[in-house]
Order: sequence, then C-alpha cells, then structure tokens
Amino acid sequence: MENLSTLTGKYGDEGDQLIFKVLNSGNYLENVTEEEYKNPRKLSSKICEKALRYDLTIPFARYVVQNRNDITFPFKRYQIQPVWRADRPQKGRYREFYQCDIDVIGSNSLSNELEIIEVINEIFQKLNLKVITKINNRKLLFEIAKWIGCENDFIGFTVVLDKLDKIGIDKVLEELSTKNFDLDMLNKTKQVLCINGNSKEIISELKNLVFNNSSESAGLKEIEYILNNSNVHSINSLELDITLARGLNYYTGCIFEIKTAVGDFSSSIGGGGRYDNLTGMFGLKDVSGVGISFGADRIYDVLEELNLFPSQTKPPFILVIHSGENEQKKGFEIASKIRGINLPIMVYPDVAKFKKQLDYANLTNATYAIIIGEDELKENNFSLKNLASGEQQKLNEEELIKCLKK
Amino acid sequence: MENLSTLTGKYGDEGDQLIFKVLNSGNYLENVTEEEYKNPRKLSSKICEKALRYDLTIPFARYVVQNRNDITFPFKRYQIQPVWRADRPQKGRYREFYQCDIDVIGSNSLSNELEIIEVINEIFQKLNLKVITKINNRKLLFEIAKWIGCENDFIGFTVVLDKLDKIGIDKVLEELSTKNFDLDMLNKTKQVLCINGNSKEIISELKNLVFNNSSESAGLKEIEYILNNSNVHSINSLELDITLARGLNYYTGCIFEIKTAVGDFSSSIGGGGRYDNLTGMFGLKDVSGVGISFGADRIYDVLEELNLFPSQTKPPFILVIHSGENEQKKGFEIASKIRGINLPIMVYPDVAKFKKQLDYANLTNATYAIIIGEDELKENNFSLKNLASGEQQKLNEEELIKCLKK
Repeated sequence: MENLSTLTGKYGDEGDQLIFKVLNSGNYLENVTEEEYKNPRKLSSKICEKALRYDLTIPFARYVVQNRNDITFPFKRYQIQPVWRADRPQKGRYREFYQCDIDVIGSNSLSNELEIIEVINEIFQKLNLKVITKINNRKLLFEIAKWIGCENDFIGFTVVLDKLDKIGIDKVLEELSTKNFDLDMLNKTKQVLCINGNSKEIISELKNLVFNNSSESAGLKEIEYILNNSNVHSINSLELDITLARGLNYYTGCIFEIKTAVGDFSSSIGGGGRYDNLTGMFGLKDVSGVGISFGADRIYDVLEELNLFPSQTKPPFILVIHSGENEQKKGFEIASKIRGINLPIMVYPDVAKFKKQLDYANLTNATYAIIIGEDELKENNFSLKNLASGEQQKLNEEELIKCLKK
Repeated sequence: MENLSTLTGKYGDEGDQLIFKVLNSGNYLENVTEEEYKNPRKLSSKICEKALRYDLTIPFARYVVQNRNDITFPFKRYQIQPVWRADRPQKGRYREFYQCDIDVIGSNSLSNELEIIEVINEIFQKLNLKVITKINNRKLLFEIAKWIGCENDFIGFTVVLDKLDKIGIDKVLEELSTKNFDLDMLNKTKQVLCINGNSKEIISELKNLVFNNSSESAGLKEIEYILNNSNVHSINSLELDITLARGLNYYTGCIFEIKTAVGDFSSSIGGGGRYDNLTGMFGLKDVSGVGISFGADRIYDVLEELNLFPSQTKPPFILVIHSGENEQKKGFEIASKIRGINLPIMVYPDVAKFKKQLDYANLTNATYAIIIGEDELKENNFSLKNLASGEQQKLNEEELIKCLKK
C-alpha cells in the first residue's frame, strides 16, 4: 500500500483511474460534506487515504527521497512485488500481477542503459525466449514534435502516438487532426511515421527529413551511442522504433519496450526508460535514473504458450501406505529419515484400505509406495513398490534408503 | 484480493472491522440510496466489492471449494503471501505482513496434527530459535464451558478467555460477570484458570475437577494422543495450555499457538488448528482440515532482536574503477566475465575522478577495486586493489580471474 496522494497524478489521467483505492477504516463518513456525497472523485479522495501500488517505480522514487540520507548514489536496486490495476481483466491483462524492476538512480551515464540492455539479454537467453528490445528516446520525440510544430502539446502527441500499435496510422492522424493539427503538421507526422527499415536506415532518413543532415539531435546521439555500444547476443535483437512513445509521462530520455519475437505473439513483456526528475515530484531535484520493469505473469504466459518451460525432472514422490496405527507410526519414522536425504515423502494420514491409499498414490502421481503392513511391522522391513512398473521388493531400512538414494 | 463477501463474517465482529475494503472503480456512487449515504456500514458494502486478504485460511477454503473437482483429497498445500489488517500499527503489529501457511484438508486423522508439530520443530530448529508450542482443544474448551454452564454462549466465553494473556484473570472474571455469569459459574471458571503445572499435572487436575476422574472427555483424549505421540526435539517444548482459546471461531478441535521462549519476548509467532467445517461456509460440507500459519515478519523481528541471523559470509563485492570512456568499456568486458564466475561486480557508471570512485567503493563496502587507468588500458592488464589492506597488484586477465576465484 501507498498513500493515495503519493500515486495520484503520476501516471496520467488514464492511470489515475486505474488506481485501486482502499477505504478508510472506522467511521470514514465523518466530516464528509453534502457536496462531496454526490461527487465520486471528491468523495473518494476524502474517504480513501491509501491505495494499492500501480507500479514499482513511483514507490521506489518515494523510497529514495525518504531515505536519501542513508543511500549511496548511484544507487541500484531490484524489487519483485505485486502491483494492481483496476483494468478489465482479459488475456494477458491482470488486475493483480508481479513486476520485476531494476533501477539505477543518481547517474547520468548512458552506460546504465547499456547495462540494462545486457540484463535483458541475459534474462531472455536464460529463458530461451527470443525477444525484440525496441528503443527510442523522448528527447528525439520532442525534437520531432518541434519539427512538426506540436511541441506545445508534447504529452498529448505522445499519448496518441502510443496508440499506433493498436489503432493504426490512419486513426492516429485522425485523432491528431482533432487536436488542432493542420494539414502541414499531419503531413509531417505521416512522413515520420512512414519511415522504416533497420535502425541505421531509420537514423539516416530521419537526419535527412528532420535534421537537415546535421548531427545536432541530442536524442539521435544517445540512440546511436547505445546502438553502437550495446552487446546484444544473437538470440535477441535491439531495434530503433521511432514510434515507441511509452505512455508514462515521467520518461525523459532513452525508452525501452521488450516484445516477444516468436509465433503469433506480439506481447509487451517489459519496458522502461530514463527519468530525469522522478524524485523531483517528492522534493529531491536533479537526480536522474533509469530502470526497467519485467512483467512476470506475461512472461510466464508466453513461456507456457510456447512450451518453453524445461520439462521438469521431478524428484520421485513417495507415499507411505500402512495397515493401521502402529504401522503408520513406523511410517512416520521412516518418512522423517527419508526427508533427511531430501526426498519428498508423505505418510497417508488416515487409516484406510490399501486400495484407497494406492488410488491416492496414483492420483497424486507418486513414483513409489512404501508399504507397511502387519508382516512388514513384524519383520521390521518395508515393501517398496515402483508404481509405474508394479515391481515390488522387501527391503530393510538401510537397503530402502540406499535404493531411494539412487 | 478477494470478494468482500467471501471474507465478511468469517473472523468475528472484531475481525470484520479490520478488513481493508477496496473502493469500486468508475462511478461507484451510482445506485446508492439516500439512506446508505449516511450509514458507513451499509455504504461500504455497496461501494466496495473487493477486499484485501485478512488471512490465508479463508481464501484457501474458497479455493478448495471452487476447485473441489480437480483436487485429490487429502490435499496438502503451502502458501506464502501478504495479508492486510486495518490495525493500528505498532511494534510487532503490521498492517501488511506475510503469512506462511500449511494446511491438510480432507483428513480427520490426528496424524496430521502430529505432522504439523514436526514441521514446527524442524523450522525452529533450523532457525535456532527456542519456541514453546502451546496446544489446547476446542472440544475440551466446550466440555469445560458445559461444566461451568456457559455452553450457550461458547463463542462469547472463548473471546473473553482469549484476552487472559493481556488483561489477567481478574479482568476476565469481571468481564464474564457482565455476561450473566453467576457466582457459581465464576467460581468454576476461576478454578479452571488456576490449574497449573506441567501438561500431565494439568490433565490429572482437570480430570479430577471437571470429569469426575472418568476418561470421557473427547478433547482430553485428543490432547493425550498428541502429547504421547509427538516427537519434540530438545530445543523446543510442547505444552498444554487450557486457557488457549484462539480468537478465530472456525476452529473445532486441536488448536496451536507458537511463542518464543527466549529473553523478554512472549510474542505469538504462529498459530493454527483444526477446522471441521470451514469449506461448509462455501457449500462443501463434512471436510475437515488442519493448518498452521507462521508470521514471517514477527519471526524476522525476533531473530533480529535476538541476533540469531547467521553472520553473513558475503561474497566479495567488486567495483570497477576507470579513468574514462574507453577504460570503462574494458571494464564492462571484464565485469561480464567475472559475473560468469558468479561474483557480484559493478562498473562505476559515470566518468569521475578516482577519488570519488574509491569513496563509492568504501561506502558500498566493496572488497576489491579493479582499477583501469590509461596505463592498464595500454598494457592490457588490471590493477586489483584489496580495499581492506590497501594492497595492490597488476594482473593480466587470466591472473585476475584466477585470483578472484580464490
């Protein structure tokens, strides 16, 4: 939980509406005025002081500012925690999901961006999942907006741009035309959006179109530095996408988005970027940071759908089957010893017929049953049954443990 | 999150008030009547459909009932997740904390209780924390209530009993006298509460006082079975405490509470018990279960306060210090290789003076600095500085990795 006031206004209008608010305890209606009673927005800020985390970045900025005197900058941290969004749940969109964030705060160096790209590579190489990391730069977007002539509503421009993937270029232009874009501006926007090719080609066309072939674009310089110095392993790729805008307004430099590159998927499974003034919102100015957030649930979904989880070599699960209370007691003793060699074992808890216990062994996919009947109790040994082959042998304790160790 | 209706009414009146409710999204005031506007209770159930988990047990019961057709009973599960309570925060009492639960559902056998006691023992032996596990039995409490004559308000009786630790015997009797306890009932209650000694002595006195020396108490039989058959390691102890009541009404048999046994602490760090009809609330009758919940945050606090965390033998943290961009690039290459042998290493992200970078190394408790200046870049080697001793040597890549491996 966070204070609602910590989160409000940090994620744009749409984001604000997706924040889950927590009702105050006790008589929360005390001091509510007649006017507030009829106004959902006013009432909610009166009756809710707390809210559920919308992401991990803003709470992190709050943490950094609160603990600024105990933190050594540049400060690196990772964090894995649930976040909540009041979205309509659908495939790949959850109301409660886990984000895995890394951030470096207190350093302007682009080497941090390079390191983040290395982390992305390492993670998805280990997961054996081919991804495309798209990069762009908010400085470049601002320069483009200036060229188009819409720098006065830069946020509005990026919010519409952010929808390109979903609604297509025509609808984007249509929406911009309702935002006082004249024909010249729309034409310029279209020219930019139609640039394609690989990263080098895009940069070259952009220089030609927007920057008069000068090399004066701060955004392009950063992009070129990153493209030239990043160390991308063969399985993945790093691509400039000048239409990538990232909805969140707090980004000021390099921005990232990670997409899966296999099959029918084109799902965003992570994203991030550089923020120059995130802690400024909480009173600590001039501290730049850069971070990335991985969506654990979506990555899980993609791995499952592509069948990329390693086939688990499960340890053999063992069930102790017994004919009564005394036999069960002996079962608990041997189970305790077998746990000592790190094998999962369970003693059937009830006194029940062998048939019922064997059925349970099969339903729970047990590999072995250790059977302790009257004979075994008397003879002080165990019957070990391989449930796949049906093979069964009588063993004393030492032999049993030796056999299971194998 | 859970549906508010899943949680309401399951934790007693006091519990209900400690449930955090989540405000509905959108225009949550639609369809609210004039009457509801002025009534906090009525309004909250209208404007909040969701709530934060109060514990893991009721959500588990909901889960079991919803998935009853896919579950093989007896069903065992563990779960580690945060829960929330709208309590006034204070030492050892958090509004958001982690519970670690294990439950077995679908088995009546007391062998499950024995296994839970074994789990408690194993955990706290591993944590090297001496604990007392107090046990009691709700059946025994009911039999005692019958003997006293207050079985008609059994819940009320146990709620007051539950406060004994905090308010003492006199206040308990005072509170019971406001609940229509006559002198004879108060006297009997006092007699029971004054029984002391070890578990055997308590059982013997209780048999004498309440059960006419017969062995007809179902509660006592269960307790004796558990005391006689549980396997408690020397570091811990298992004690009958007939004043243990457990606030939660859903317990029906054996109940547990784990307390720390060292120093000034007498903090409850876990508890649980048997519930015969928890799933019945959600429509699945006659399924008995037993479980225990460990409070991770309190256990952490106790371990920290008693200094019981093993002194960490941290891996050596290495900082790469460099004199400029090219040197840093070489730093990233060697860092990548050193990560390959599983050592934590960081390249100072900014171009900065050696002094500043060395200060950072000291502030972050780095063990070694790898220094790459102009000379090292030219000579293709590295200076490895032991930051504790100040000792410094020049090494080539192979020597450096060999040295750090040690």
